[in-house]
Amino acid sequence: MSPSRFSHKGLHCEGISEGGIRTSLIVPTWRLMFDIGVLPIDTIRIENLLLTHGHLDHSIGVPYYISQRSLQNLKPPNVYLPDRIYETYKKILSEYEILEGFQYRYNLHPVTEKKMFDLSGHLSFQAFPTHHRVPSLGYTIYEKTKKLKKEYIDLEKSELIRLKENGVLVSETRSVPMMSFSGDTRIEYVLENEDVRNSKILVLECTYLDSSRDVKRAREWGHIHLDEIVNHADEFENEKIVLIHFSKRYHPKKIPAMVEEKLPDSLKGRVHCFLPDRFL
Amino acid sequence: MSPSRFSHKGLHCEGISEGGIRTSLIVPTWRLMFDIGVLPIDTIRIENLLLTHGHLDHSIGVPYYISQRSLQNLKPPNVYLPDRIYETYKKILSEYEILEGFQYRYNLHPVTEKKMFDLSGHLSFQAFPTHHRVPSLGYTIYEKTKKLKKEYIDLEKSELIRLKENGVLVSETRSVPMMSFSGDTRIEYVLENEDVRNSKILVLECTYLDSSRDVKRAREWGHIHLDEIVNHADEFENEKIVLIHFSKRYHPKKIPAMVEEKLPDSLKGRVHCFLPDRFL
Repeated sequence: MSPSRFSHKGLHCEGISEGGIRTSLIVPTWRLMFDIGVLPIDTIRIENLLLTHGHLDHSIGVPYYISQRSLQNLKPPNVYLPDRIYETYKKILSEYEILEGFQYRYNLHPVTEKKMFDLSGHLSFQAFPTHHRVPSLGYTIYEKTKKLKKEYIDLEKSELIRLKENGVLVSETRSVPMMSFSGDTRIEYVLENEDVRNSKILVLECTYLDSSRDVKRAREWGHIHLDEIVNHADEFENEKIVLIHFSKRYHPKKIPAMVEEKLPDSLKGRVHCFLPDRFL
Repeated sequence: MSPSRFSHKGLHCEGISEGGIRTSLIVPTWRLMFDIGVLPIDTIRIENLLLTHGHLDHSIGVPYYISQRSLQNLKPPNVYLPDRIYETYKKILSEYEILEGFQYRYNLHPVTEKKMFDLSGHLSFQAFPTHHRVPSLGYTIYEKTKKLKKEYIDLEKSELIRLKENGVLVSETRSVPMMSFSGDTRIEYVLENEDVRNSKILVLECTYLDSSRDVKRAREWGHIHLDEIVNHADEFENEKIVLIHFSKRYHPKKIPAMVEEKLPDSLKGRVHCFLPDRFL
């Protein structure tokens, strides 16, 4: 299976997402993977995994990923997951170590909402609450950028240099929300979290598209219906919105047209449907 | 990923096997799968799974298989596995039920060596000990066939009919070993078990092929080296020997020639290398 791909302003992402079947998205430059409902045979080298929840179409690859990296003597991976499933995962992994007859090397990090974690010198993330049928979190990745402080914005270059020479800190580091990944959730994930709406890229589940499963039923199952995105179109400040996790009840070939015909002008051109490679 | 295939006398098998990475073989007519080191997205309908051991390249798909069949309201699958890993698997599955927030429906059967299990009216199996680094079993599938008893073999048809009319049982049911599947093992699995050597089809791991990893090292890791198959060529009574589980150190394109050049005449024509589809 070839992965599907999308890019935004030079940031390249690849993976696959089929609602209820498998979901995983990789950002190679960030050495980061969101969810792992696949066996990461070609992507075992990715060092950091952010897990949104424990449903197996998003998480089945966890023990395999850890086991293979241990066998291949790769650096212990960092697996971040909702704190409420941390203990269960520890038990599962220790039972798998018994089955396999060797010790895994990994770092399992319990994540609580709205707490910043560093991924590297210039990259961090925090989790925001999602609303699904099991404990779940969405993740927002931030890039740290240096910006001139407001009060110095109108100064000449020569003056700035002089201030710097005198030991004045003219710039500050800001964390810019670059990408949010929803996992499975109701629309509240978007409505309640400003940084999700402001992320340059929003990777958002959109499991249902038409009246064959309506908004009410979608919400009962802890998912988003396209109609809700349309109804809240003005909330989305994102440069690119990548819709994933379409239900298998829709043929992938038909999905782009089904989405396009409902989108208001304000969303047109910003929304991308993430489909299996063979249907692009 | 497309599965690879082979057939023998109308019995069709498909799957994939890459040593240390993933192994699974399906016999659709028998509704049977050997090992599940894959996510069985296209083969979730197969009802019976025989698991040789707990290494994840052979078993990672177990919870996914059970979970998906439960979600899709398919009949609870039968998962047969070595009795020594039964309790561990029960724990893993019950932790996964907690993670997923629903109850799985499945039948988990602990298997002991040399005990016959019925799969259907005409199909049964028993397990033979394999020799690996963790608890493991190989499986031999038997087809039940009716055959004339020896003492009646030379009789005319009319006489047989007469005997039958008089209530004499002229035929008996015999279980013929149709296929053996080794999982991971040392060569002893073949040498110690007559029904393995007599199976019409023997699916045999052959992880190592040349001196880059020699027989001694292969044995230390609980695997078979091609040289051992060659040295014991006379033991194999099988009509077809399907070699699987080649180490990834060998490029699949080169494997058939590496095998062919070592085979003695007595094995030539009976040995088939099971390679990923793209290299056939």
